[in-house]
Amino acid sequence: MASIRDVAKEAGVAICTVSRLINGTANVEPETQKKIEDAMKKLDYVPNELARGMFKGRSNSIAMLVPNIQHPWFSSLASEIEKILYEKKYKFMLFSTSDDKQREKECFKLLKSNIVDGIICGTSACTAKEYQKIDKPMVMLDYKVGSKFPVVVSDHKMGGQLAAQEFINSGCKYVIHISGIKVDKNIMSFECHEELDRVLAENGIKSRRVPIQWNDFDFHGYFEMAKCILEEYPDVDGIFAADMPAIAFLKAALAIGKKIPDDLAIVAYDGTYITNASTTRLTSIHQPYKEIAQEAVRQLMEMIDGPEEEDDAEGQGESATADQIDSAKERNTHIDGNLILLPVSVEKGDTTL
Amino acid sequence: MASIRDVAKEAGVAICTVSRLINGTANVEPETQKKIEDAMKKLDYVPNELARGMFKGRSNSIAMLVPNIQHPWFSSLASEIEKILYEKKYKFMLFSTSDDKQREKECFKLLKSNIVDGIICGTSACTAKEYQKIDKPMVMLDYKVGSKFPVVVSDHKMGGQLAAQEFINSGCKYVIHISGIKVDKNIMSFECHEELDRVLAENGIKSRRVPIQWNDFDFHGYFEMAKCILEEYPDVDGIFAADMPAIAFLKAALAIGKKIPDDLAIVAYDGTYITNASTTRLTSIHQPYKEIAQEAVRQLMEMIDGPEEEDDAEGQGESATADQIDSAKERNTHIDGNLILLPVSVEKGDTTL
Repeated sequence: MASIRDVAKEAGVAICTVSRLINGTANVEPETQKKIEDAMKKLDYVPNELARGMFKGRSNSIAMLVPNIQHPWFSSLASEIEKILYEKKYKFMLFSTSDDKQREKECFKLLKSNIVDGIICGTSACTAKEYQKIDKPMVMLDYKVGSKFPVVVSDHKMGGQLAAQEFINSGCKYVIHISGIKVDKNIMSFECHEELDRVLAENGIKSRRVPIQWNDFDFHGYFEMAKCILEEYPDVDGIFAADMPAIAFLKAALAIGKKIPDDLAIVAYDGTYITNASTTRLTSIHQPYKEIAQEAVRQLMEMIDGPEEEDDAEGQGESATADQIDSAKERNTHIDGNLILLPVSVEKGDTTL
Repeated sequence: MASIRDVAKEAGVAICTVSRLINGTANVEPETQKKIEDAMKKLDYVPNELARGMFKGRSNSIAMLVPNIQHPWFSSLASEIEKILYEKKYKFMLFSTSDDKQREKECFKLLKSNIVDGIICGTSACTAKEYQKIDKPMVMLDYKVGSKFPVVVSDHKMGGQLAAQEFINSGCKYVIHISGIKVDKNIMSFECHEELDRVLAENGIKSRRVPIQWNDFDFHGYFEMAKCILEEYPDVDGIFAADMPAIAFLKAALAIGKKIPDDLAIVAYDGTYITNASTTRLTSIHQPYKEIAQEAVRQLMEMIDGPEEEDDAEGQGESATADQIDSAKERNTHIDGNLILLPVSVEKGDTTL
């Protein structure tokens, strides 16, 4: 395929002249312009829209980073963000990092140039210090990085409270909850587990957190883990885990003859579409991915365009903050500094606890 | 963030001079080089890797188009392709088109420039004529476009045959199969349905194809559809559908008191991880997504680098074809012209048919 160099050669002009014409950075003589346009036509050359961003400083593209695109939570969220950005005439590029720090860093290196105007960061393999170095409009989805970037996130504390209430209501005495293995106080989803422990303890219910490694989204791995845990802790009567491991617990429990929910109450976290796939639908705490997608794009657009270019009335000049908070209340979100918290909700399953 | 223009201004040189230095297209005086490098450092400017591709004609990036990233088939495949390309030091960009022709065309317009070296096309909203116009190394995943692009695809005919055999073995008399709505003889997954009809008819089994619209991956939509079909065709005793609708049929059938598989034999197509989520695991025809990912990348790399740059011995010079076919046989694939067919397999569920 033709490059700008081929076009320059064909037209008999310097590469810079072709650049100037494409990017409108300076006038080009009409005769030269015709030569270049003829060459482009002949070679079927399409100016590099992203490269143009190098000159203009704008690309109308947004990147999203996710740790694992196979995970239904991230694929649902990415799908929703893609739709919203398309309506806003933005291109959307998705990068999946396998929850690998090196891979994530390479993405940021690529994105440090002007190929995108902003980033929606759903990964958390780097440290707060590393994220703070990113010199781009960016919205975080689960990782607090101080005042530099807004975080649009489910109200995970509320998630922990709602889950605890389900276990209290069903008379549980010993709840095991499965979390990720990384311990970083900036990862907000951990608040769910801390809050669950706190509320259960307040109500005299024993609880234990079992951290597990990301395992390439391998259902059989989850299932083996569930079998081991049910064997090792025979007195457990409550399980709290993300959708897929929760479903693995359901199957492992049924396999050893446990009755759901009488012998074992299970609450799934995320509430993605796969909770519908299990024949016995589990009760879940639903993270509002559509609202998170809306809010993340809204925040990012404000960082890119500034609040005065927003369509709606909010965010005009200095007095914006109060208006923004009012408007956020209408959208049922809670703003705390640069944290934008979206309420989660309980979705009752077929096995009412 | 700094643009090349800011760097040029800071260094007091022309934009073209900065370009020349970044892209190595011509020598730059050492003194000028220092000025530019100092300016880049001061402004924290990172040369646009993708823009550089505009000059060099190479970007080390690959794009993949999928109709819906939320769909477990496409998210599994994309995830696998990302991992393989990472090993090969290629960047991977994913574009989700919502199965919308206009959106797909916009992606191709963007990709027509040099931001990627090749495309893996999992969409099929355009016509063969439109795909043929793409002037890039490209591998198709389900759509035949004549001799221009290789198609790496599950052996869908084999899929239809294996499914038919499951229904024959379970003594079915009337099988309903759910397909996509678009009728285009170039979409290869249709062969599965044609072959199913053919083999069932040969064995005196009635069958009916019910086309459904893509519905934004809405499980409740699938469930309602399943209920309606079971009501409208009370004598149906076999269902063949993609994973999610197949699970919807399982749930709808159980809800009206049908016994699985005695009253209704269900075979799912794709066999993605979500078939594990249903408490009663369905028998499925497994599409080998890992092998498809490997083969798609292999084909694309051959188009980009040429066969002589391959690491292994295959594909040396003129006599490549025979070697390639031998090598393909070792990989258990079947090459027919530019079709690379990968065998599917039956995965028995909990409800052995």
